[in-house]
Amino acid sequence: MVIKVAVAGPRGRMGKEAVATIVKNTDFLLVSVLDNKNGEEFLGDNIPIFTSLEELIFQTEPDVLVDLTVPSSVFEHAMIALDNGVRPVIGTTGFTDLQLDEIRNKVEEKEIGCIIAPNFSIGAVLMMKFSQMAAKYLPNVEIIEMHHDQKVDAPSGTAIKTAQMINETRTIFEQGHPDEKEIMEGARGANFSGMHIHSVRMPGLVAHQQVLLSGEGQLLTIRHDSFDRTSFMSGIVLSINEIMKQNTLIYGLEDIIL
Amino acid sequence: MVIKVAVAGPRGRMGKEAVATIVKNTDFLLVSVLDNKNGEEFLGDNIPIFTSLEELIFQTEPDVLVDLTVPSSVFEHAMIALDNGVRPVIGTTGFTDLQLDEIRNKVEEKEIGCIIAPNFSIGAVLMMKFSQMAAKYLPNVEIIEMHHDQKVDAPSGTAIKTAQMINETRTIFEQGHPDEKEIMEGARGANFSGMHIHSVRMPGLVAHQQVLLSGEGQLLTIRHDSFDRTSFMSGIVLSINEIMKQNTLIYGLEDIIL
Amino acid sequence: MVIKVAVAGPRGRMGKEAVATIVKNTDFLLVSVLDNKNGEEFLGDNIPIFTSLEELIFQTEPDVLVDLTVPSSVFEHAMIALDNGVRPVIGTTGFTDLQLDEIRNKVEEKEIGCIIAPNFSIGAVLMMKFSQMAAKYLPNVEIIEMHHDQKVDAPSGTAIKTAQMINETRTIFEQGHPDEKEIMEGARGANFSGMHIHSVRMPGLVAHQQVLLSGEGQLLTIRHDSFDRTSFMSGIVLSINEIMKQNTLIYGLEDIIL
Amino acid sequence: MVIKVAVAGPRGRMGKEAVATIVKNTDFLLVSVLDNKNGEEFLGDNIPIFTSLEELIFQTEPDVLVDLTVPSSVFEHAMIALDNGVRPVIGTTGFTDLQLDEIRNKVEEKEIGCIIAPNFSIGAVLMMKFSQMAAKYLPNVEIIEMHHDQKVDAPSGTAIKTAQMINETRTIFEQGHPDEKEIMEGARGANFSGMHIHSVRMPGLVAHQQVLLSGEGQLLTIRHDSFDRTSFMSGIVLSINEIMKQNTLIYGLEDIIL
Repeated sequence: MVIKVAVAGPRGRMGKEAVATIVKNTDFLLVSVLDNKNGEEFLGDNIPIFTSLEELIFQTEPDVLVDLTVPSSVFEHAMIALDNGVRPVIGTTGFTDLQLDEIRNKVEEKEIGCIIAPNFSIGAVLMMKFSQMAAKYLPNVEIIEMHHDQKVDAPSGTAIKTAQMINETRTIFEQGHPDEKEIMEGARGANFSGMHIHSVRMPGLVAHQQVLLSGEGQLLTIRHDSFDRTSFMSGIVLSINEIMKQNTLIYGLEDIIL
Repeated sequence: MVIKVAVAGPRGRMGKEAVATIVKNTDFLLVSVLDNKNGEEFLGDNIPIFTSLEELIFQTEPDVLVDLTVPSSVFEHAMIALDNGVRPVIGTTGFTDLQLDEIRNKVEEKEIGCIIAPNFSIGAVLMMKFSQMAAKYLPNVEIIEMHHDQKVDAPSGTAIKTAQMINETRTIFEQGHPDEKEIMEGARGANFSGMHIHSVRMPGLVAHQQVLLSGEGQLLTIRHDSFDRTSFMSGIVLSINEIMKQNTLIYGLEDIIL
Repeated sequence: MVIKVAVAGPRGRMGKEAVATIVKNTDFLLVSVLDNKNGEEFLGDNIPIFTSLEELIFQTEPDVLVDLTVPSSVFEHAMIALDNGVRPVIGTTGFTDLQLDEIRNKVEEKEIGCIIAPNFSIGAVLMMKFSQMAAKYLPNVEIIEMHHDQKVDAPSGTAIKTAQMINETRTIFEQGHPDEKEIMEGARGANFSGMHIHSVRMPGLVAHQQVLLSGEGQLLTIRHDSFDRTSFMSGIVLSINEIMKQNTLIYGLEDIIL
Repeated sequence: MVIKVAVAGPRGRMGKEAVATIVKNTDFLLVSVLDNKNGEEFLGDNIPIFTSLEELIFQTEPDVLVDLTVPSSVFEHAMIALDNGVRPVIGTTGFTDLQLDEIRNKVEEKEIGCIIAPNFSIGAVLMMKFSQMAAKYLPNVEIIEMHHDQKVDAPSGTAIKTAQMINETRTIFEQGHPDEKEIMEGARGANFSGMHIHSVRMPGLVAHQQVLLSGEGQLLTIRHDSFDRTSFMSGIVLSINEIMKQNTLIYGLEDIIL
């Protein structure tokens, strides 16, 4: 059975890729898009554009709403979708705890699934999850994340998230030699509960991270390279397929992939 | 409570390391060793040496027997140990199916645990297991294993084992371009159910393997480096601790670590 | 002093990037482009388009002609440019030996430089050159090249070129164990004068190569990752700057960078 | 012609390996060793042991003296050797400038070669030299060095040496985004003239370093892994062979290998 999909935010970077991906996929049918402006031809094919989500649902009856719009509108979208029996797949973070509770309640009331995924890259999610699992047995951990030099903050959000997840399984201790000495300040990187995080920033790079976990005589390295934003598309495809089988609120891809 | 441990095969390469590891570990007490010759001073400390396993058990009452001897004797050792309420931790492969059945029956009869681990390296086991889990979502897989040039067979046993494990979760298909052409024979490596395996052999290397799993726009790499045989010791320590809590036959570390 | 540059083939993939790069660079002035059709607005700025190279040179007097057109026209372009005192920077291969001789003669007659670069990626050229230099001291070499799975031929042209260059410095011998045995055919890759070459093909990858050189107890790895075609631009910029100082025929970037 | 070699410091870690290496090499003949104690059987074969270098030279007439003793004695050894026409191969650093001048004068007077090599690992020397050469064209550089966690200082001496060598060719500038911000202190590593150096310390590791050099769309990685101290032996063998052809003071292997 083909899944009928609507996309909110079809003109953004992610949105464009998502539309292209859904159109190509024969398991899916793109029935409509939600945009804040109307009237322009869209995609050259006859996908109707709506500025009202209720109208979109009423006229095109999607099974799933893929929402790639800004945080300010996703909550409202999710509530409207759920109220009308449409399953939301949401790629934005930034919900308040209260909003999450409301969505969860609505999901339970309607008994249809909803996915909120801060990161749609399956590979990145696997890297984080595997690192968390391995740190229980190989508790010496260092994280090296590497990004293009247009990235301002260091470490990256993914590196911090990885460290937080590892912290749930790793026995906390201060790594390195007790008398360790930085001849040059910063050489040992940032210290997160005794683990060290290193941020590389260079032109040419895209988005890469490796997690090193070691024990006596051995090293386990879990590395993820994201070469372009198409890396997010497999996570969206997976979410659309999976949400049709779920009737709870899923937060993070890790809950449906492992 | 301290676990009383006996070691069979204390003079081999692995055995020596195991003895040293157990002696250093304050959770364990090395009570005796089983060797095929007697009389020499052992380790400089007063660890008694036995040539009969029954005698060893009778006199020193170990909780666990770590057996690092050759395949020809481990089966008999395991049966004697189990019969006497001693839990075997076995690092040798090469049991027949019939022998495995007999051990399993004995384990169930006696209701005490037994571990048979073809690979005591926790990192290698994690690499294989994670690759298996990831291949479900990133089914394009290539394996590159790298060893010193004294290794005769290619691919390595670990590479083949990894491919077999991945095969259980990966949808089988022929990877690469349909019109793919080897200008030089062998360039694309060995073909295992459509996955490709590459074997590097160079002096200087020890034992390394990376599993590459990719999807659109992304690459996940899971790599294990084994720098020396101390890498097996953490697996032995884990097994000794874990087997005290088990009352079944465990085959492979993956069953106690994931 | 600003260098006046003309670009032949400004609408191809490489050509577009080259035009953008030259326009952005304050050391250069893009004075004109050579295209096989005329009349359309180009780039929105007033760069004149010509279909005749003589006309282009006569009217816009470039110092350098960057030629990114097809092999069938580059030879003629180069001869016309040299005859008129314009220095060619050529990114196409496929000259016959006779043509190369004619260009060399013309270069010597006119005493102005000309660069023919089969590969404008400085990083790739450095990788090949360093591998060649290192193989003299670390003669155990294996090459692993990794490309997207749309690439049909294996190994890649760069891998073969690398092996050829290494062959000039490496003492030839058969690597690996003398009794080496492939349990699975192809595992040890392609054999090039005793070195082994492995080709990985996966979706998500772009163009990557690593050269492994080892000796007793050590491994030297020289790796190049090409993430997109902007990687060629620095080689073009370098060539334009460098050709102004040269008065011979340069074949390959290696002759001006090392 | 076989080269006659004497080894000073044959019982240290490096010394033992050097003796074994020289004995195995059919181009060399180990004629004697210099030790601070005498009388014991050495190596089971009839290599004479001396406690006086003059005596050693007088009786066994070596061509080359490989000196692996402590800094306090190497200067005197070198002067005695040179005075007697024996070519020193020295693996210790820690000479004063004055001592280096005296050795240089003596070398010139006697017209025989002398090698002082702070690092006998050919791979490490190649890594440093290639990084220096590449930084001229790819001036965005980050260094990641990784060592076992018994190493107290960070960054390693090799990393600092590498950065210093790179500094001779790289245009100095501050890498990364101008508004770069460390959310966690130390994340961006140590800053050396605008390049960043990251030090990883983990059990299991030996001695590893990678130098990353990038440009638009590309990354060049030069990595050296030292797995054990046999990695120094090829440098000693090379030095013995090479010094017979030299008649100057060579400081660092780079001067004879590139």
